[in-house]
Formats: sequence, C-alpha cells, structure tokens
Amino acid sequence: MKYDAVVVGTGIGGYPAAIYLASKGFKIAAVEEHLVGGECTNYGCVPSKALYQFAESYKTISKLDGTINYKWSNLIEWIKNITKEAREGIEYLFESRNITLMKGKARIKEPHRLVVSNSSEEIEVETDKIVLALGTDPADIPVARFDGKGIISNREALYLEEKPEKILIIGGGVIGVELANMYSALGVDVTIVELLDHILPFTDRDVALAVKTHLSQRKVKILEKTTVIQVEETSGKYTVKLSNNSRTEVDKVIVAVGRKPKTSGIGLENTGIVLDQRGFIKVNEYLETSTPRIYACGDVVGGPLLAHKALLESIIAAKRIVGEHAFTLNYKLVPTTIFSGLEIAYVGYTEKELLSLGIKYVKVRLPIYFLSAVKIKGYKNSFIKILLDEKQEKVLGIHIVAPNASEVISAYLPLYLGKLTLNETSSIPYPHLTVSESLRDLAEYITGEPVHSLKSSSF
Amino acid sequence: MKYDAVVVGTGIGGYPAAIYLASKGFKIAAVEEHLVGGECTNYGCVPSKALYQFAESYKTISKLDGTINYKWSNLIEWIKNITKEAREGIEYLFESRNITLMKGKARIKEPHRLVVSNSSEEIEVETDKIVLALGTDPADIPVARFDGKGIISNREALYLEEKPEKILIIGGGVIGVELANMYSALGVDVTIVELLDHILPFTDRDVALAVKTHLSQRKVKILEKTTVIQVEETSGKYTVKLSNNSRTEVDKVIVAVGRKPKTSGIGLENTGIVLDQRGFIKVNEYLETSTPRIYACGDVVGGPLLAHKALLESIIAAKRIVGEHAFTLNYKLVPTTIFSGLEIAYVGYTEKELLSLGIKYVKVRLPIYFLSAVKIKGYKNSFIKILLDEKQEKVLGIHIVAPNASEVISAYLPLYLGKLTLNETSSIPYPHLTVSESLRDLAEYITGEPVHSLKSSSF
Repeated sequence: MKYDAVVVGTGIGGYPAAIYLASKGFKIAAVEEHLVGGECTNYGCVPSKALYQFAESYKTISKLDGTINYKWSNLIEWIKNITKEAREGIEYLFESRNITLMKGKARIKEPHRLVVSNSSEEIEVETDKIVLALGTDPADIPVARFDGKGIISNREALYLEEKPEKILIIGGGVIGVELANMYSALGVDVTIVELLDHILPFTDRDVALAVKTHLSQRKVKILEKTTVIQVEETSGKYTVKLSNNSRTEVDKVIVAVGRKPKTSGIGLENTGIVLDQRGFIKVNEYLETSTPRIYACGDVVGGPLLAHKALLESIIAAKRIVGEHAFTLNYKLVPTTIFSGLEIAYVGYTEKELLSLGIKYVKVRLPIYFLSAVKIKGYKNSFIKILLDEKQEKVLGIHIVAPNASEVISAYLPLYLGKLTLNETSSIPYPHLTVSESLRDLAEYITGEPVHSLKSSSF
Repeated sequence: MKYDAVVVGTGIGGYPAAIYLASKGFKIAAVEEHLVGGECTNYGCVPSKALYQFAESYKTISKLDGTINYKWSNLIEWIKNITKEAREGIEYLFESRNITLMKGKARIKEPHRLVVSNSSEEIEVETDKIVLALGTDPADIPVARFDGKGIISNREALYLEEKPEKILIIGGGVIGVELANMYSALGVDVTIVELLDHILPFTDRDVALAVKTHLSQRKVKILEKTTVIQVEETSGKYTVKLSNNSRTEVDKVIVAVGRKPKTSGIGLENTGIVLDQRGFIKVNEYLETSTPRIYACGDVVGGPLLAHKALLESIIAAKRIVGEHAFTLNYKLVPTTIFSGLEIAYVGYTEKELLSLGIKYVKVRLPIYFLSAVKIKGYKNSFIKILLDEKQEKVLGIHIVAPNASEVISAYLPLYLGKLTLNETSSIPYPHLTVSESLRDLAEYITGEPVHSLKSSSF
C-alpha cells in the first residue's frame, strides 16, 4: 500500500493534518493504536469539560442549599457518550475524505516505509511523507507507580466507576487543579500535594493564590512545598505518607505530575530524528524533524501541551507538506486556559518570566468583583492583570482570573496582538452582563477615566 | 442648592455620566425616584441573569435524570441579594465621589432649575446641565392591563413569591423568550403568544427558528401569528382566550410586548425638548436634546434598549459636558444579546435589513454541532452566520446562535470592526474547548480550508 502521507496518531495534533491533506487530494492513512481522537478527546479536554459543566452546575444549585440526587453511573455514562460522539465525529470526517484509518502500532522501518501491526495483522505501508503526532503519556513517580486500580492518572480519574469519598492528588498543575475543583464541587474530600512553592507554579503567584483561595473555600486541602514519601495499599484503601510527617488514607491517589512523550517503539532509531533533553522530538517552525519528509506536531514536540497549539501545528505541517505558504505559530500567543471554576486564562508573559528576562514592565491589576457577571457566579476574587512595556504602549501579557475566562480571553487577544488599542476598546459596546465587558472597564482604568472602580493611586 | 449637573435617573444610562462628571471635578446630584440602578440592576439584566444561571444549572443536572430539591424562597432571596449588592455598589461609587443622591421625582421648571419632590419634602435645585436618563416602563395592552397580581411585567416576574405552575407570556421578544427559557427549565408550563410571523421578529428567521426549536424541546408552547382576545380572572387564576379560539388557564400572565419612554411628569413642556413619533426624546450623536445644556441618554432616547448602549451613551454625554473630545457610538456595532439557553448574539445587519435596503450580500452559515463545547451543552442546532458584502471583503453582520454566545460575540467584534481579517483569525490559537474557537473554524470555512466541517457546495 502506498500513500502520499501517513499520519501517526489521530489526536488533535494528528487528525487536522490528515483531513487538511486529504482535502487537498493527498492519499492519506491515519494510524491509531488506541482510540481515535487521542488524549484530548478521550481523556482530556472533552470528558473533563463534560464533568466540569456538571460540577459547576452542582455548585450553583447547592449554593442555595438545594439538594441534588443523581446516579453517578448516569454521569459517567453521559461523559462516555460525549467522548464517543466526539470520536465518531472525527471518524466521520476521515470517512468523508477517504482517509484510511489503520488501527495498530506504527513502526518506521525507513523514512519511506512503516509497518502497522495489531493483534491480527502486520501491514507494510509505503509513504512519501510521515506526520508524527504521537502525544504523551501521564508520568508517575517512584513512590507512586500507576497500579490501574487506586494509583491512577487523568485517564482513569474521569471515568471512575464509583464516586470516591476521599482522593489525594499528587501535583498541583493544570490537571490536578481542574480535578480538585470538580471533585470538591461534587462533595469529594480532596487534598492536593504540590512539591513547589505554590500550586500552578508556572503562573504568577497572585493568579495561583486566587485559585488557591477559591479551592480552599471549597474545602480542598492544599499542601505546598510538600512531597509524597510513601503510598501503601491496605484492603483497597491507600495510605499516603507526606514529607510533613502526616498520613492520610484515601480511596484514590491521582498522579498528575507531568507528561512524557510517547516516542518509544515507533522506530525513531531508523530515522535521523533528534530528541531534546526531555525526550520531545525536535522540530523547526514548520514542524519539520531532522529527517526530511518526516514531520512531528502536537504534544510530542513539547512546548505548551495544549490542544489549540497542537491543532495549529498540525495545520502548519499539512500546509508545508502541500507546499502552500504556511503561517508560523507565535507560541507567546497561545493562551493557557485552566478550567478551575474561578477560571484562569492568560496569554503572553507572566511577571515571573519578565523578571527573569530583566524586561521592565508596568502592571495594571483591576479587581472585577463589581461586575454582576462575577457576583452572580460568586467568584469575587476575580481580576484582570495586564502587563505593559515601560512606555505603556505594548501589551506584554494578559492574565484573566474570572468565571468564563476561557471564553473571555479570545476577546482580549486582539489587544495582545496590537490589533485593538485600549483607547479603542473603551468605546466598544461589549455586551452587558458578561465578563468580556471588563475589557471596557480595564481600558477606562488604564486611560484614566474609570467609571466602575476607584482608580488606584499606585498606578 | 446649585450643581454643575443633575443626572435624572440612576440606571445604566445615568450613573456612568454622574460618576464620570464627578471624577472630573463637577458638582453632581443624581435623582432617583425608585431604586438606584434602574431597570437593568433591579428588574432586568442583573436579576434575570441570576435566575438564568440557576435555570441553566438546573437543566444540566436534570439532563442526567437527577432530581433537585430547593426552596423557591431561597432562590428569590438570593436574586434579591445579588441586585441589592449591585445597587449598593453604585451607591458606594456615588458616595466615594461626593455625588449627592436625591430620592424623589424630578420636574424641570426651566432649563436651569428642577424641583425634586418626594413624600416628605420638595427641594429646588439649580444646575448648569441636566442629563435625562429616564428609562422606560413596560407597556401593557387593552385586553391585558397590569393588575399587580397576576397580569404582570418583567418587574414582578423575576421575584414571584411562589413558583407558578403555568404561565402565559404575551410577546415573543427578548424578555418573553428569556423568561420562557428560564421558567421552562425549572419545570413551569410555559406558553408564548406572538402576534407576528415568528418569535424574536427583529432577528432573521433562521435565528428565531433555532431558538424556537430549542424552546419547543423544553416543552414551551409557541403560538405565532396569534393574539390575545381576552384575559379573565377567576379566583386567582387567569383564563386567556386566544385568536385561534383556544382557551387556557394559567397562574400568571406576563405582558412583554414592549416598553414606553418615561417622559411624563418630568416637565418637558418647560423645555424645548422634542420627542419622536414613538415618544422617545430626540438627541443628536452627542446625546444633546433640542434644548441647550440638556442631554438625554439610555432607553429614553430609543434605539436598541440595551444596557451597554445606554452605558456608552452616558459616557459620551458626560465627555461632551466636560468638553472633552467625545467619541460617537456606532449603533450598528451594538451587539444584541439574548440569554435564551441556546443564546443569540449578533452585531451589524440582519438579512432582513439587507434585503429591505437592497444591499447585496453573501451568506456563510456554519453549523457548529461538531464543537465539543456545543455537544456538552447539548445545543446542537448552534450555528454561526456571517454576512459579507458581494466582494466578500467586508463583514456586514455576525450572528451567533450557541451556548455562551453573549461572551463569544466580543471575540467576533474585531472581525466586524475590520480590525482582524478572516485570514488572520484562521491562524490564531483560540483556546480549546470553547465556543470562541468557532472563529478559527469559520475562517477556515470561508477561506476554503475547512478541517472540521464538510464544505458546503452552495457557497
């Protein structure tokens, strides 16, 4: 069998390239060893946002002392249906563009030849180009190795057969914080253990602190600068010993300490592909690896492990393969979004980064407790932080900590891109009652004409 | 007492002007005859969005066959608290800027003199400028006059002491549709009666149809091209006779047929102020009335009766009074937002308007059922419609029918403003899993490189 291109991995770093290429008339095979749609569709964004919607609704109702009776199994069944639909949507797009979907593990024999094998067969495939969208696996740690039962990753954590009473999450990164928010909303006793100074260590301290306060109000126990010394299983429960000498018994231990690129067994040794120090595939701005005609995109090339970054990389690689003029991705323009109830979304630089780079900046921090959209949600420690260059002409970073921040950041992006000025946004009728209308308040605040807030004297 | 300016009405068309002027050193009085914050804060946006949040959460839980027990009185109490907080926020801003708040009814004696009277006193006030932000009252109709008990407006409908079993809404405009969505979500039997061809008659038919389908699925009965012939009260219930010869008995009849400007009793006869045919105060682009030094803004000047339009008008009037360079409001840039579960937000022209103006256009309509953010919410008849000029260079209108449309429209505004091109948005990493990422899909769709959809052959 001969193809113009074989895309290995059908996650959000892979399927867009496959579809794009097929729509340009390329003969395409897509290889998937597990589930079509990869991590995002099956174990990440999609199921977690389904659970998130339920959890946030649960919060709203219980705020009024309402009681809710539901079957846990119905919830999990619904989440499974949502992911199934998303998966089938991709399969349908493949079919409609005549993309051959091969189920199995791909192994590169030489840069033009792969073998795809599964339990029943082994197929040799010839191809002109290869796109590697291999993704990542969750990493575990020596004192807490995944056991498939109670020491688990995000993959099991979103499909638990029974609602746990008590969980401990190792790692206060995005996955840890999102799971803590959702599970605590549903009444689960949650502890987060974070090795570093504060949870969400890559964000600025004020951003992390707002979410820490939010989670603490939801009774999540957050232990920072703390490590796990030992995890012991006794009759289905797990006793966790921590560096602060405490012990706690939980139903599940979720390890969310990081991800490792899935590069083994793919036959990279038969190519000239170079990995970086952390094991991610090295690529240039067009997602070309060190071996001609082999591309890599998505999580396996490192950088921010975010779906929207993977998707654009996938399209860039496809455009490059087609020979079209491909744009390149400005990685500083990739927003980070954290679905943590009190949501976080930011783009550009953090203060930490600017300080470490020695770039001088002006900070404007506008609390937005006065917005009714914030009051109704009850997330009063919401704020917007804008980092400007010294001359206050260029926006270096935008940090939104607010309900709906994940949608709202898209309205802020043109400001970061320099496509809209603060002066312009101050006269745009962003609709009431939303969080996006904070854009106008922020502009007024910076340009010196604030209506909704007392102007800070420190600015 | 002498002031630099008196602002009559403290709704969202009034309080921003008062605060802006005070912050520029003007001596300001604000007159309020009822509740600070006006319609939006007390009877409109704020309480309705609180109820909306609860109703949407209720939908999410009940979708999984969950049962919810809550006290209706807790819900109403919570809504009252939210509006109280919003009101107090404005009062606090007044205090902090030394704005004199006068409770009572204002009457202009001559262009520089008002009398403010309430039950205990009558105060004469001299002023250099007057800003009239008088707002509107709900209108009733001859066959259904407000009776303060069961034939009611939005003002009572958001604070019902008991949960009704069955309601009938006269008028399928924004208020009618929003109330129908919320009440039906909470299990109330709802009928909408609309005189014209379709509900939301000012929107395009496809937009209205999507919401009609959505509401029908929630068991709302929608009767279009239908009028109310008679409403009769019998022992606390209301029997409504319709033009289709049917009769229905309900607990409450909500009249939501329109608004009328609150211009009576204000002493306009003592000024040269001119009203338009519908009774709204005529103003120029700087919100100046026909009488020098008297300004009017917000709902009382007509145009779209929307809070964000009123707010910007209020600031424009204030800037003009200060003598600053005031921007003018592009009314075609004012987004209409409808919080109807499956939300509507649009800006610019409708197809109806373009057709009646004889402007040729190209329509691009992208269903976005494939977005996981849409699937999770269950609003699969979501779509984005863009109207372009014949050359496909200029965006004439943007119509979003989707969950979260009210936030998402702000991300689309730069496209309408010509600040971002479709080509540019196709390479912007709008975050996954949101509705805003439809922007990228739409751009791909129009520029001919769609990944997530089958390209329509009709375009």
